[in-house]
Amino acid sequence: MRDESENAQLALLLEVTGTPKPGNVDRHRDYDDLGFEQFMAGAVGSLSGLRLAADAGTPLGRSFERAVAGMANQSAGNTQFGALLMLTPLVRAAATDRLDPSGTRAVVESTTIDDACEFYRAFEHVDVAVDDPPDGLDDLDVRRGGDAAAALRTRELTLYDVMELSAPIDGVAAEWTNGFERSVRAAEWLREDDGPIYKRTSRAFLRLLAEVPDTFVVTRNGEAAAAEATRRARAVLDGAEDAEALADEFVDRDINPGTTADLTAAALFIALETGLEV
Amino acid sequence: MRDESENAQLALLLEVTGTPKPGNVDRHRDYDDLGFEQFMAGAVGSLSGLRLAADAGTPLGRSFERAVAGMANQSAGNTQFGALLMLTPLVRAAATDRLDPSGTRAVVESTTIDDACEFYRAFEHVDVAVDDPPDGLDDLDVRRGGDAAAALRTRELTLYDVMELSAPIDGVAAEWTNGFERSVRAAEWLREDDGPIYKRTSRAFLRLLAEVPDTFVVTRNGEAAAAEATRRARAVLDGAEDAEALADEFVDRDINPGTTADLTAAALFIALETGLEV
Repeated sequence: MRDESENAQLALLLEVTGTPKPGNVDRHRDYDDLGFEQFMAGAVGSLSGLRLAADAGTPLGRSFERAVAGMANQSAGNTQFGALLMLTPLVRAAATDRLDPSGTRAVVESTTIDDACEFYRAFEHVDVAVDDPPDGLDDLDVRRGGDAAAALRTRELTLYDVMELSAPIDGVAAEWTNGFERSVRAAEWLREDDGPIYKRTSRAFLRLLAEVPDTFVVTRNGEAAAAEATRRARAVLDGAEDAEALADEFVDRDINPGTTADLTAAALFIALETGLEV
Repeated sequence: MRDESENAQLALLLEVTGTPKPGNVDRHRDYDDLGFEQFMAGAVGSLSGLRLAADAGTPLGRSFERAVAGMANQSAGNTQFGALLMLTPLVRAAATDRLDPSGTRAVVESTTIDDACEFYRAFEHVDVAVDDPPDGLDDLDVRRGGDAAAALRTRELTLYDVMELSAPIDGVAAEWTNGFERSVRAAEWLREDDGPIYKRTSRAFLRLLAEVPDTFVVTRNGEAAAAEATRRARAVLDGAEDAEALADEFVDRDINPGTTADLTAAALFIALETGLEV
């Protein structure tokens, strides 16, 4: 039997293997500066932090920061930052037998100001594409890394509070504050689908992308591109577009729905914990 | 920095990712009953045994048996038995700063009768394709698993002795008894090559296959098929055959050069330990 941290590592590997996932690195596609092999190394490096997430004695923020530090130990920079932000609380919930909406809610709501400081420190390991903070919140810019600690303490913000502030503009933060609702639903799709997991993963990814614009695409390419990605994912599901051609086109145009990939990794983890066999 | 067990896990992942590797599961090819995703799960499950291999206090045979038990925790049965048999002594050598011919030789020559018993026990976890034992050695048939312990003790055979007996018919055992000479050479090819690692891996695999007939193909498909595989790998290197077409043909014909893949995994590990960057 794999333990929770091992299932989380496997979820990272299965996520990047899923193909086609339009715009993402997948089993068949690389970006020039971000390839499949760096995702493999990222998954290998993440495990020691994921093990800490499975250990209820280690603060959640610290577990995340350690997972990111290990993940970043490859040449492409950020491969799985958002996926680890999804997986860390889910691993903690699963390891303490609370992988259900009330349990995951309890995990994220119990985070502390120290957890928020560790979350900010994690940004020192990699260059993550982010928006400028809203007016008046410059002192909470994640690009400040550990230097934001004083502002977090003054404002008494826990990691959950930070996620609440980000939820309107970040799909990962939104999952943190809504009981991981979309990830749980996608896990059900993965379990109930059939065939090889890399094809189920592609279908789950497309369904997630068709539902809601990807916030990573919003940040990097703008709202119009994000709306287009969602519209065209829907067209693939309706049979009006070819998924492989769309995947090639989005890689060419550097439209990378990374938030949807993060949710897909979370869904794979939940599915592995609830009966999906490999 | 990845430690030795993490580099071994990454080597398993990079090995199966390498494409085209004619006849093997690779980034672009699956067998119906043996897919890329089971190799991912096999690599995840192997790590705890590989960690024992990095711990000089754990007997080598036990480390291997635990790695195989973890690897086997997926639905396809045997994915990486031979690769783990290569990696276990190499991880031990690297973790004790002896990853050189005299060091790896010292590691394998120090194995004991208990290590041999654990090696036999490992066969209880998976169904490995093997030949019948030579005349007079029926009591050493690996398919007897742990039941062979009495015979191993009576004959006073260490794991190294068992490998010496198998070396003429098994390419992994041959590496154990020749200082891992071919794997070390292939690691140099990987380091000195350029481009993405999945392409370097393909080229190293083809060069290994072109050198010596694959003993796993001999066992499963016969000497003629093994000779053909080597001849045609040479033709690919000479530019007379297309590697992708050959890969498709060999998967169709179920000609799977698994021993060459095992050596490729070992070569990737050595390369990662000696400067190959991901």
